[in-house]
Amino acid sequence: MPTQLPNERPLREPGAMELDPSGEGVAIDETRRLIASSKVEGTPVFDRAGEQLGTVYNFMVDKVSGQVAYVVMSFGGFLGIGESYHPLPWRALTYDTRLGGYVVDIDKDRLADAPRYGADEDPFMDDEYVAKVDAYYKTVPTA
Amino acid sequence: MPTQLPNERPLREPGAMELDPSGEGVAIDETRRLIASSKVEGTPVFDRAGEQLGTVYNFMVDKVSGQVAYVVMSFGGFLGIGESYHPLPWRALTYDTRLGGYVVDIDKDRLADAPRYGADEDPFMDDEYVAKVDAYYKTVPTA
Repeated sequence: MPTQLPNERPLREPGAMELDPSGEGVAIDETRRLIASSKVEGTPVFDRAGEQLGTVYNFMVDKVSGQVAYVVMSFGGFLGIGESYHPLPWRALTYDTRLGGYVVDIDKDRLADAPRYGADEDPFMDDEYVAKVDAYYKTVPTA
Repeated sequence: MPTQLPNERPLREPGAMELDPSGEGVAIDETRRLIASSKVEGTPVFDRAGEQLGTVYNFMVDKVSGQVAYVVMSFGGFLGIGESYHPLPWRALTYDTRLGGYVVDIDKDRLADAPRYGADEDPFMDDEYVAKVDAYYKTVPTA
């Protein structure tokens, strides 16, 4: 298991071919750079030590700007709670092309205290909740 | 039917409440500003005269930047062809909060000549196809 991941990796090696479908087991509706919104569910999310924390449940996209604002990560079990959902601000994530997933600079212990919600909740309707998410991840040291 | 739509509408009226769930029939996983990636399918796409051209099939999202690069619009029937998919560059679209959908500055006649693909194709793997899409919509006059 890798002990530390660089914060960013180049998306393409210099001089690499533009298309390399065999390189990473690229799936339908997914190129190295683009992924269909219908395919984001299940993308793994890792901590900075390379340990998987959960998987992407969905992206919350700004309808006007087209920018992903939050990634909702789902997981269940290892913290002793049922299936639950952690909204992660987009800027707290880095896509790692080698891992084929997102890296977030938070470990399991801190995640246990982070804002989460249950399957029957819709917290993005609540501005106060969203502000709490933003505030929580502002305190995460960057790299 | 409105004959001409302004290119952009303010997302919130000045002084409006931050949350107004009853205002626009807001659905689960959807606020006025954010929409879950799992819910984008079906969002209507209109031409500038307010006529519906099709619906969103999916968003193609840049995994690294989190920016939607293309909206794939599906439609079938009225042009005499089967279900097909039109990739629209994000910058060619404007979200209209009143219509609850996207407006693209192209009419049905021009759309008939625009790049499209069938259900069993995965054109985003093909850089030349993507370049063709970009080039096509560069020639659309902006408002």
